[in-house]
Amino acid sequence: MNSRRDFIKLAGIAGGAVAATSVSKVAMAALPEPIIQTSPDTMAPLFPKTGRPYNPVVTLNGWTLPWRMNQGVKEFHLVAEPVVREMAPGMKAHLWGYNGQSPGPTIEVVEGDQVRIFVTNKLPEQTSVHWHGQRLPNGMDGVAGLNQPAIPSGKTFVYEFEAKRPGTFMYHPHADEMTQMAMGMMGFWVTHPKNKHPLIEEADRDYCFLLNAYDIDPGAYTPKIMTMLNFNLWTWNSRVFPGISPLVARKGDRVRIRVGNLTMTNHPIHIHGHEFEVTGTDGGPTPKGGRWPEVTVDVAVGQMRQMEFIADAVGDWAFHCHKSHHTMNAMGHDLPTLIGVDHTGISKKVHSLIPDYMAMGERGMADMTEMDMPLPDNTLPMMTGDGPFGSVEMGGMFSVLKVRDNQKPGDYTDPGWYQHPKGTQAYEYTGEGLPPAPSSARSGPAAMKAQNMPATNIEVQVKKPVGHSNH
Amino acid sequence: MNSRRDFIKLAGIAGGAVAATSVSKVAMAALPEPIIQTSPDTMAPLFPKTGRPYNPVVTLNGWTLPWRMNQGVKEFHLVAEPVVREMAPGMKAHLWGYNGQSPGPTIEVVEGDQVRIFVTNKLPEQTSVHWHGQRLPNGMDGVAGLNQPAIPSGKTFVYEFEAKRPGTFMYHPHADEMTQMAMGMMGFWVTHPKNKHPLIEEADRDYCFLLNAYDIDPGAYTPKIMTMLNFNLWTWNSRVFPGISPLVARKGDRVRIRVGNLTMTNHPIHIHGHEFEVTGTDGGPTPKGGRWPEVTVDVAVGQMRQMEFIADAVGDWAFHCHKSHHTMNAMGHDLPTLIGVDHTGISKKVHSLIPDYMAMGERGMADMTEMDMPLPDNTLPMMTGDGPFGSVEMGGMFSVLKVRDNQKPGDYTDPGWYQHPKGTQAYEYTGEGLPPAPSSARSGPAAMKAQNMPATNIEVQVKKPVGHSNH
Amino acid sequence: MNSRRDFIKLAGIAGGAVAATSVSKVAMAALPEPIIQTSPDTMAPLFPKTGRPYNPVVTLNGWTLPWRMNQGVKEFHLVAEPVVREMAPGMKAHLWGYNGQSPGPTIEVVEGDQVRIFVTNKLPEQTSVHWHGQRLPNGMDGVAGLNQPAIPSGKTFVYEFEAKRPGTFMYHPHADEMTQMAMGMMGFWVTHPKNKHPLIEEADRDYCFLLNAYDIDPGAYTPKIMTMLNFNLWTWNSRVFPGISPLVARKGDRVRIRVGNLTMTNHPIHIHGHEFEVTGTDGGPTPKGGRWPEVTVDVAVGQMRQMEFIADAVGDWAFHCHKSHHTMNAMGHDLPTLIGVDHTGISKKVHSLIPDYMAMGERGMADMTEMDMPLPDNTLPMMTGDGPFGSVEMGGMFSVLKVRDNQKPGDYTDPGWYQHPKGTQAYEYTGEGLPPAPSSARSGPAAMKAQNMPATNIEVQVKKPVGHSNH
Repeated sequence: MNSRRDFIKLAGIAGGAVAATSVSKVAMAALPEPIIQTSPDTMAPLFPKTGRPYNPVVTLNGWTLPWRMNQGVKEFHLVAEPVVREMAPGMKAHLWGYNGQSPGPTIEVVEGDQVRIFVTNKLPEQTSVHWHGQRLPNGMDGVAGLNQPAIPSGKTFVYEFEAKRPGTFMYHPHADEMTQMAMGMMGFWVTHPKNKHPLIEEADRDYCFLLNAYDIDPGAYTPKIMTMLNFNLWTWNSRVFPGISPLVARKGDRVRIRVGNLTMTNHPIHIHGHEFEVTGTDGGPTPKGGRWPEVTVDVAVGQMRQMEFIADAVGDWAFHCHKSHHTMNAMGHDLPTLIGVDHTGISKKVHSLIPDYMAMGERGMADMTEMDMPLPDNTLPMMTGDGPFGSVEMGGMFSVLKVRDNQKPGDYTDPGWYQHPKGTQAYEYTGEGLPPAPSSARSGPAAMKAQNMPATNIEVQVKKPVGHSNH
Repeated sequence: MNSRRDFIKLAGIAGGAVAATSVSKVAMAALPEPIIQTSPDTMAPLFPKTGRPYNPVVTLNGWTLPWRMNQGVKEFHLVAEPVVREMAPGMKAHLWGYNGQSPGPTIEVVEGDQVRIFVTNKLPEQTSVHWHGQRLPNGMDGVAGLNQPAIPSGKTFVYEFEAKRPGTFMYHPHADEMTQMAMGMMGFWVTHPKNKHPLIEEADRDYCFLLNAYDIDPGAYTPKIMTMLNFNLWTWNSRVFPGISPLVARKGDRVRIRVGNLTMTNHPIHIHGHEFEVTGTDGGPTPKGGRWPEVTVDVAVGQMRQMEFIADAVGDWAFHCHKSHHTMNAMGHDLPTLIGVDHTGISKKVHSLIPDYMAMGERGMADMTEMDMPLPDNTLPMMTGDGPFGSVEMGGMFSVLKVRDNQKPGDYTDPGWYQHPKGTQAYEYTGEGLPPAPSSARSGPAAMKAQNMPATNIEVQVKKPVGHSNH
Repeated sequence: MNSRRDFIKLAGIAGGAVAATSVSKVAMAALPEPIIQTSPDTMAPLFPKTGRPYNPVVTLNGWTLPWRMNQGVKEFHLVAEPVVREMAPGMKAHLWGYNGQSPGPTIEVVEGDQVRIFVTNKLPEQTSVHWHGQRLPNGMDGVAGLNQPAIPSGKTFVYEFEAKRPGTFMYHPHADEMTQMAMGMMGFWVTHPKNKHPLIEEADRDYCFLLNAYDIDPGAYTPKIMTMLNFNLWTWNSRVFPGISPLVARKGDRVRIRVGNLTMTNHPIHIHGHEFEVTGTDGGPTPKGGRWPEVTVDVAVGQMRQMEFIADAVGDWAFHCHKSHHTMNAMGHDLPTLIGVDHTGISKKVHSLIPDYMAMGERGMADMTEMDMPLPDNTLPMMTGDGPFGSVEMGGMFSVLKVRDNQKPGDYTDPGWYQHPKGTQAYEYTGEGLPPAPSSARSGPAAMKAQNMPATNIEVQVKKPVGHSNH
């Protein structure tokens, strides 16, 4: 293990330069030196230099694992180990992962590649790796007990197979699976098609990330592993908003987003401003006549869904899980309800707004984002995120798709906030600048028919006092 | 705000008459007078009088918002405000909504319409409106902080865009979203196609409703807003059975039901007696070759699913969410389990039925519907609903599709209970009237093969006593 | 009831012989003698002897109900009654079911059959039977209160209809539905097509099972019926691993698996080593152009999904729900978290593995499968299952698809564990037998570009100590 004490920096020169590389030849026979990632930032794609070009994927707040060619075989080295993952600036989690991070690195190969993966177990318990969705020999499928003995602590096992079909896969343990996945052990696998495929378009931007979830008490660092439903950190690649990178695109780009779900519930992934199609699953590309236009795709557990669309609308578009608790951070579910409690402090404000309204303390949570509420150490605010127009009041599974006219191909840098052209933004009504009220009455009510239905009153009236809630 | 004290009745004459209309011209510049709905009943459709005919939708226990034309622009006025919503006769909830109700009114326009929506915030906290699924300028998308400043209490904001694509959309806040949606702020938006569309059929009945959910303690009025999973009121348009209107159709009608989900979990919407197809999502119409025949569609959160079928089977058909807890009302989840408790009172009955059976108190819940159990104020029974043959023993997300031979086009009145033709209903066996037992043995067992499988006994025997449950 | 005391063995001679049959003619008019199943084993298929051949289904750990022909009508007799169901060897549950088991028997007929089902209620409360998905007269649809009076305790009701469309259906009570389904009352119904159907292939193996779930405290026997989400026994046909039969197939077989969900949540059913298509729902066969290739299908509540594939990969392939808590047994959710607690006993082992690593007690759950932890009576271990290479560490919704070159058609016996050909199984790395390390550096990092992105370090280093979790 002493070889790991030698620091070997492999990449990381900012500013568009090609990274310098220095590889130590290790004495240990054929085992490739493991490459460890210390940063949770999104790494630029690995451009292939193997004579078979493809457009590489960008893993949100993740990276692609380098390999070495060895007599025609692509060799990778995964190290299963405890890691420290920054979930967002201000909060670190003690997880289990691969090669320094959770999730592990994305493995990216080409259809027909012969691959050999060395898996070293540095966890305190046994593990294994299942290559979800792959076609491979039964003995390489990774279900401990059924297909192979589990990999004991301190040992390295070897998996070898051909990347038979192009597609998007996941890898994760199939030994003490509940624990090890609850601790963050998982990663993506992308096999690019060798030749042009009638159902696989070339994408200009090809993003991928995993849905995962943790239950970490405020102030704590380690997930509770027996949680079935009540997770409090809903994450993309073990990151939460505002720690998740934006997705950037040039107007007109074909954007592909590969989303895999290894949580315990469905996540309806929703994008604003665009309709998309699901062009592939972890089972393969979908037939064109069977693709529905969608704005939200429900990604079930153990599924990959590949969303694809033309980014034809410029702007900053919200992109998130549509379960509203999943766009909150850890404090969200433990706070007492504020609504329904008598807040003397705000009753004056309510009264001035609706004179007949009794003080109920109905306020909601929005001003909590501005409160200087003391938080435990290592705890993120429930709702946060500085936007160009104030707090975005989000957390968890939330990011932004930034579409710009002038984003250069291959440029993944954040272009900053969108500048709205004049007259294209919601504005405060002041009675000025709008056309005068028309002289004709509104067309709707005049045309209303009751049609034998129970009488319906549409009226403008003072609302009756709502009274106190008695709980 | 004083103008709201003037009662202006706009509709409501029962019996098929055209409603009288009286509109007060308000002094406040161009801001249209808000129209407030005080009734939770299903309003008859607004027939369009704008020269572009379409078959309007019927919002279950809801209504369509009238508009005014202003120099070619359809102007709507939404008022975000605290409301009192009757969930079913006997139970009122203190929610937040729009224009007097939760959900807010359905906005119904035609493809290509220029729309202007005034949104007045009468809530005690800031809000915004996101127009889920719409194609619009980024600055009109309504994500507070990201696309616009939030609308402060007491202010009115203006949204303007073209209804670009036909379809079914939703609107809801994107500011303190978890709170405001948990309080009931949401509504439907239908954009009818301008011209005949190859994937959009003309429907004879076009229903829509939103799935929502609340957590209101028995006896209380205000939802708990931090609930993630354990909701106790599963509602359609903030109504529960038996407070939900039936859906009526004439035999042979093409029926469309647009269902949007803004809860925190999937709802499998199931219809009896018919198969349907999903002909559209909030992303657009589905391709014909990609439509599956279904009897249950799983509507994920943040999705709209448009069910469509020919109502070719007369009768009263149950229509409900298939999660059985979602067809229960609030008491359902707090009661102690009755089964497994020794109920001395019923042991005699059990013994007389199955003499070998030991008293277990296994009873189930059915007779609770008839018990005069004292309920807290403002609390609905868990299972209720008077049907033609006794209690339907339901609550929550349950209604009835009533298909009749003679329901007139455009007539949405409840036709009463279905009259079953003789010989078409399940009946008690008395040994009379059936053909005699055949002389041949049953064909099945004689043909059974064991096929190298573990021996399987099919026998008729006395069941052994089951004994007491020990928990 | 005394007739039930006469034991009448109908089947069960092991070794491929045709079962002997002996039917007692009962005096009670035309009511067919109910057939009761005492074994939870998978019964071999009933081969049809009615002149209309079809390939019968095999119900996992279930059986097909024999019938009698009576003047052209197929007569079945279902008895709703308390049952004892063995969930796996070592654990029995006190459920409600039909004809001795939960789920009830599969009813298997042919399109166009006239069927008559006698339903006798031996439960302590009223019931009814709804024939989910069927086309039938409204009065036969089984919703108590709405379509018929409920069937009182001790009474028999008669349902009569034509099996109009081929497909897969379910039956379950629609009276006190939440209770009765939580207690296990449900069954499958398969209607085979009368003629060749363009969208229905002939399957070589045709399996079916229901997804159900129970909440039974460790040591207890009777489910808690008010549970909405926190079930602790996730079952297939009321069985858990290792009590679920394997699915066997010959290489090249077309395998169909019909899965119906009557729990309270979605189940993503995942198969290893193969891609499949959903060829049918409870609404009918799916159009060929609308079928997606999948490795996981999300079966929503109240839905049936028919998975179909060619079993072209030999081996023992895991087949399970992908929610990891659903492949655990009852203890899973009540145990305290072990990770994050200081376990003095294991700190030495961790130190020897990673010297810089501080004792955290991060261990996981795997060695619990080997612990002789005392369990309450009638309680299964959380993770168990003896595989050929040690414990499979699973429970709940887990089984194995066994594909063999030489499995005879119609042979459903377990072929034992798969024998892996040499060189096709993951193996321990020892530095021997692999090609030597290549002289060229790994290709990946050399090609890495930072592309204006935040600097990213890939380095090989000693991990910093992670420290104690403070919760």
